[in-house]
Amino acid sequence: MAGGAADFRSDLMAGIPAAARAAMLRAAGEAPEMGLRDDPHQSRLERMVSELAGFEDALFVPTCTLANQIALRLWCRPGDIVLTAAGSHVAGPEAASTAGLAGVAVRQLEAARGHLRPETLRAALAGPARPGDQPARLVWLENTHMRAGGTIAPGDWVREIGGTCREAGLRLHIDGSRLWNAEAATGLTLAALAEAADSLSLSLNKALGAPAGSLLLGSRDFIREALAVRATLGASWRPVGFLAAGAIEAVAGRAGRLGDDHRRARLLHAGFSHALGPLAGEAPDTNIVLVATPPGTAAMEVAEALGKAGVLALPLDAATLRFVLHARIGDAAVARAVDAVRRAIA
Amino acid sequence: MAGGAADFRSDLMAGIPAAARAAMLRAAGEAPEMGLRDDPHQSRLERMVSELAGFEDALFVPTCTLANQIALRLWCRPGDIVLTAAGSHVAGPEAASTAGLAGVAVRQLEAARGHLRPETLRAALAGPARPGDQPARLVWLENTHMRAGGTIAPGDWVREIGGTCREAGLRLHIDGSRLWNAEAATGLTLAALAEAADSLSLSLNKALGAPAGSLLLGSRDFIREALAVRATLGASWRPVGFLAAGAIEAVAGRAGRLGDDHRRARLLHAGFSHALGPLAGEAPDTNIVLVATPPGTAAMEVAEALGKAGVLALPLDAATLRFVLHARIGDAAVARAVDAVRRAIA
Amino acid sequence: MAGGAADFRSDLMAGIPAAARAAMLRAAGEAPEMGLRDDPHQSRLERMVSELAGFEDALFVPTCTLANQIALRLWCRPGDIVLTAAGSHVAGPEAASTAGLAGVAVRQLEAARGHLRPETLRAALAGPARPGDQPARLVWLENTHMRAGGTIAPGDWVREIGGTCREAGLRLHIDGSRLWNAEAATGLTLAALAEAADSLSLSLNKALGAPAGSLLLGSRDFIREALAVRATLGASWRPVGFLAAGAIEAVAGRAGRLGDDHRRARLLHAGFSHALGPLAGEAPDTNIVLVATPPGTAAMEVAEALGKAGVLALPLDAATLRFVLHARIGDAAVARAVDAVRRAIA
Amino acid sequence: MAGGAADFRSDLMAGIPAAARAAMLRAAGEAPEMGLRDDPHQSRLERMVSELAGFEDALFVPTCTLANQIALRLWCRPGDIVLTAAGSHVAGPEAASTAGLAGVAVRQLEAARGHLRPETLRAALAGPARPGDQPARLVWLENTHMRAGGTIAPGDWVREIGGTCREAGLRLHIDGSRLWNAEAATGLTLAALAEAADSLSLSLNKALGAPAGSLLLGSRDFIREALAVRATLGASWRPVGFLAAGAIEAVAGRAGRLGDDHRRARLLHAGFSHALGPLAGEAPDTNIVLVATPPGTAAMEVAEALGKAGVLALPLDAATLRFVLHARIGDAAVARAVDAVRRAIA
Repeated sequence: MAGGAADFRSDLMAGIPAAARAAMLRAAGEAPEMGLRDDPHQSRLERMVSELAGFEDALFVPTCTLANQIALRLWCRPGDIVLTAAGSHVAGPEAASTAGLAGVAVRQLEAARGHLRPETLRAALAGPARPGDQPARLVWLENTHMRAGGTIAPGDWVREIGGTCREAGLRLHIDGSRLWNAEAATGLTLAALAEAADSLSLSLNKALGAPAGSLLLGSRDFIREALAVRATLGASWRPVGFLAAGAIEAVAGRAGRLGDDHRRARLLHAGFSHALGPLAGEAPDTNIVLVATPPGTAAMEVAEALGKAGVLALPLDAATLRFVLHARIGDAAVARAVDAVRRAIA
Repeated sequence: MAGGAADFRSDLMAGIPAAARAAMLRAAGEAPEMGLRDDPHQSRLERMVSELAGFEDALFVPTCTLANQIALRLWCRPGDIVLTAAGSHVAGPEAASTAGLAGVAVRQLEAARGHLRPETLRAALAGPARPGDQPARLVWLENTHMRAGGTIAPGDWVREIGGTCREAGLRLHIDGSRLWNAEAATGLTLAALAEAADSLSLSLNKALGAPAGSLLLGSRDFIREALAVRATLGASWRPVGFLAAGAIEAVAGRAGRLGDDHRRARLLHAGFSHALGPLAGEAPDTNIVLVATPPGTAAMEVAEALGKAGVLALPLDAATLRFVLHARIGDAAVARAVDAVRRAIA
Repeated sequence: MAGGAADFRSDLMAGIPAAARAAMLRAAGEAPEMGLRDDPHQSRLERMVSELAGFEDALFVPTCTLANQIALRLWCRPGDIVLTAAGSHVAGPEAASTAGLAGVAVRQLEAARGHLRPETLRAALAGPARPGDQPARLVWLENTHMRAGGTIAPGDWVREIGGTCREAGLRLHIDGSRLWNAEAATGLTLAALAEAADSLSLSLNKALGAPAGSLLLGSRDFIREALAVRATLGASWRPVGFLAAGAIEAVAGRAGRLGDDHRRARLLHAGFSHALGPLAGEAPDTNIVLVATPPGTAAMEVAEALGKAGVLALPLDAATLRFVLHARIGDAAVARAVDAVRRAIA
Repeated sequence: MAGGAADFRSDLMAGIPAAARAAMLRAAGEAPEMGLRDDPHQSRLERMVSELAGFEDALFVPTCTLANQIALRLWCRPGDIVLTAAGSHVAGPEAASTAGLAGVAVRQLEAARGHLRPETLRAALAGPARPGDQPARLVWLENTHMRAGGTIAPGDWVREIGGTCREAGLRLHIDGSRLWNAEAATGLTLAALAEAADSLSLSLNKALGAPAGSLLLGSRDFIREALAVRATLGASWRPVGFLAAGAIEAVAGRAGRLGDDHRRARLLHAGFSHALGPLAGEAPDTNIVLVATPPGTAAMEVAEALGKAGVLALPLDAATLRFVLHARIGDAAVARAVDAVRRAIA
């Protein structure tokens, strides 16, 4: 905990597991490889996660935003329309990239707990297309959905949306920055969760704790083209075998880590519910707990009050605070957060 | 009326006034000028409207979308944020350009009859800026506001927003595609209506009936840079003195034309109100009348039924029809539309 | 002649033929059409030239730069590489658009009289591709080639390049801004000249004298997508049936007009050769005559001296002047230019 | 040496020094920081190199291409022109980014040993600017110049160009990917070498051997805006304090490392000169040695022959091989390369 505070702001704060640090150090002493695809650690990481997620190939990139943006550049032409549930990350914190890097316009459709209902998508596609309108080329799902509180997309919705996309000639991308949490929470494999998708992005350094980086997954052809787009975007970092070596260990050791986060998220929510009642919202699916501030109380001010009590939470908007569970948050920190929130709000 | 129908779909259907046609023909027989700024007709048009609107200079471009997009490119860097009222054209029909041409992300704020309240803007600017967030660089007003039904922005709101922009170091652009209608309806000059703005776009070929083209207005430096951006966007059409010659006449003869449109818009709305009650909405500010279709009745189907009765209207969404008044719509067409709508809806 | 000068700077100065003006005036009095593809004049123009050039469909756009840039956007992804002969317009005066609008990088290959030899292209494609390099996606020919002096591409080169492109999975675009001149000079049809190409752009308002506009040609699918890209680029000008009506007459009446230009270009070159010897360069293929200025004499200064004698020519670089023949240049102007050049240079 | 080969292909192969690895490991065990500018290691690195190079501030980014592209995005608008010496990296291997990411067009001017003479720049700026031309906004120097063989820009040229830029209102960026080598070779400080520049990029993981990353340097305002552009480009990697911690050690320990590389480059060149005569070119300024292959001998084939002898060199074009010295190349490898080249070419 930085400065002794319990830092719930982001799972980016999880820290790097010891096994990952050791693997990174070992690899950092080896002779590097020059090529973009010949590093043995990187290749092993890409193959390992491709198999877990059921894709032909994968590419290691510096950030999850980049994995998402490369997918946008590959599936869309500048000016094309992407359909997604309202509140998706690609239309929120990443909006500057979506417009200013991929040049793509997002059409936000009605969301249910952050997710797109198949019938909502079908209705959007049924509308009359005027000649000259830029086409909707891509459907974008975010699973788990951050802004809705780490909610998991219903599996039958995803499957049905996949079918609709295939029929309509659209591509389906899953922003799976936190799909690992859905895996841990449902017991389903990544491959089952992403079966309907043409491409998938996965963050490695959020709750997993890899030293750095994310993965973009897709068909062999897709990833071959992604390699060139990655270069154009200035993201051909190399040699980064040592980072891949660390990531392999982070992926391998993910299970217990995420299970603990989810358990503590439920604990935190139970404490909040007891203290705040309905402001605590519904029980979390995964590792994110959202709390509404009472009418007339700004989230920003509550966050400041909590900070003074050594509990760091992130205001998502004027009336919502986000708490994210991760490996540096233990049971004591959860208790401390419940107590601090009770004093600050209730 | 094309095919004998009364075509209310758009004021793009207004047709070219006789004086504009005559001026265009005369100029089309002259020797053209090569330069981008030395054509006498184009220079006269640009000077004439600069003076009407109170700007130092103006530039003649093929479409109003281009005038808007050049302004976006000049005031913003790709990835910057533009603040505007929800439902603005720049975030709707022009969204593909805004993202795919200017690379700018739009943040839509709460609107009142299509317009931004000064306090809404101030609240949006007061929020905490995280380091690394792309900045809001530009505020975008649309006057009259198409999607809200040709509504006129309250003058004191515009003035106050202008002051807020200057204090906050933001630029203010007015998408004045139909600012001519606000001029005709309020009796205020264009210069008074656009006083707070750093740049302004004006359509010449909607209700005015110029043969083709729009204008972008701003300071002398702004327009000098706009000339280069226009070239980059492939929009350096030339020689087009003959089109400017026609536009001059269309601008000169606008007053009666628009006054008639507004009178007939009120007539049309009165007929709809009598027939439909609250579905007819509020009385129009200018030349656009929106009609809500009853629950369970799709606007698309009503439009088809009206079309069979020789009345063409444009579905704006699943439950809204748009009727636009213009020079090819006379009193008889208004009566016919009222009658057809009564049969189709009421 | 503007101000009494003989204006050889560009065939944009040709002026609009009487038949085109008359057709334009007639159409300008008709009720306009709203749709993007339902205007009868525009449809007739697009069909007429599609048939002449052997393509399935065509789209009317404001400038030839736009026709070219839409093709770049459709065949390439931002960051892709286009291969072309050194000195092509797409890499010269249009470079800002190519980078700043289509986001495409141009690789200029060795040219012979402005044109790409098939073996030069094959050698460029034979080089080792590194993984991660953006691919060459498109080959770009310009016919006639402006910078080389209106030279016509050898037909067998174009055919052979077409074959190489098909084998290598590349697309072939012809920037045919002045392909009309190749048609007039060779007696071949546009269809024969463009047979190898996947897409073609044609200027309508250079030597042809259409009031305004250009055409982009390609398959039905390509043009359907071009319609959306045109909208994104802010170039969906409408209603412009009256401009299309004028263009139809300009196309119909082109033959004599261009033949005269070419005859006078040879006359002008003969006069220059007699006066200047080798500085006059080789005899022109079409309507452009380039003159080298003697060592130590700046083209800019010669242009000024000529201007004082009532002859306007365009400096292309520090040591080259361009003379373009067009309908407003008669035999007397040719004689005057020969005389003025003799005095200024020889 | 990977696989026992002496790998001269790139200084990216230098490997991470032990001190850098140790610092990285220590930092990787600490609690991370969430903010984009509050990590103590990153702040220390940015301050340390800002002081070395004489700039107010710096920003840590994943690749040197990104540092360069952020500078292009900040100084230029899409479609603007950048002036640089022919053969610069920004117009060669980075061309896809320059066009497809920054949207900037490069005008390559005549180079002397890779560098721009002040008089060449002045002549380029003296040319007549047509109204509507996109402006040249930025001058781009690359020091040392890779394609010319690691050559150092003459200090008085750089100073004089800086003066010309200030007078003409242009900005000056130095792509200093290998400016560290100029520092080591000349004994001048980074600050002296970059004094004329408005912004500077520095690679940390070429010869220096930092684990990963590069720096962009400029004024405080410039870097504050760079932070937002970095986010838009998907390059806000975090938390990466451990990478910054390693970079600090790599920077601190650079002196001896680079001096050895330069000494061995001269040794290698002397061996090549003895064996090949003029094909060996001139003596190297820094750590890059270029060898021309004899007429009729493809560089690709020579590279293959060398590879069989355990010596890896990079073909830069059909007739040039590149050898780069770095920390994993010792005296024995130099001797082996001389011997292998003698057998393969001489």
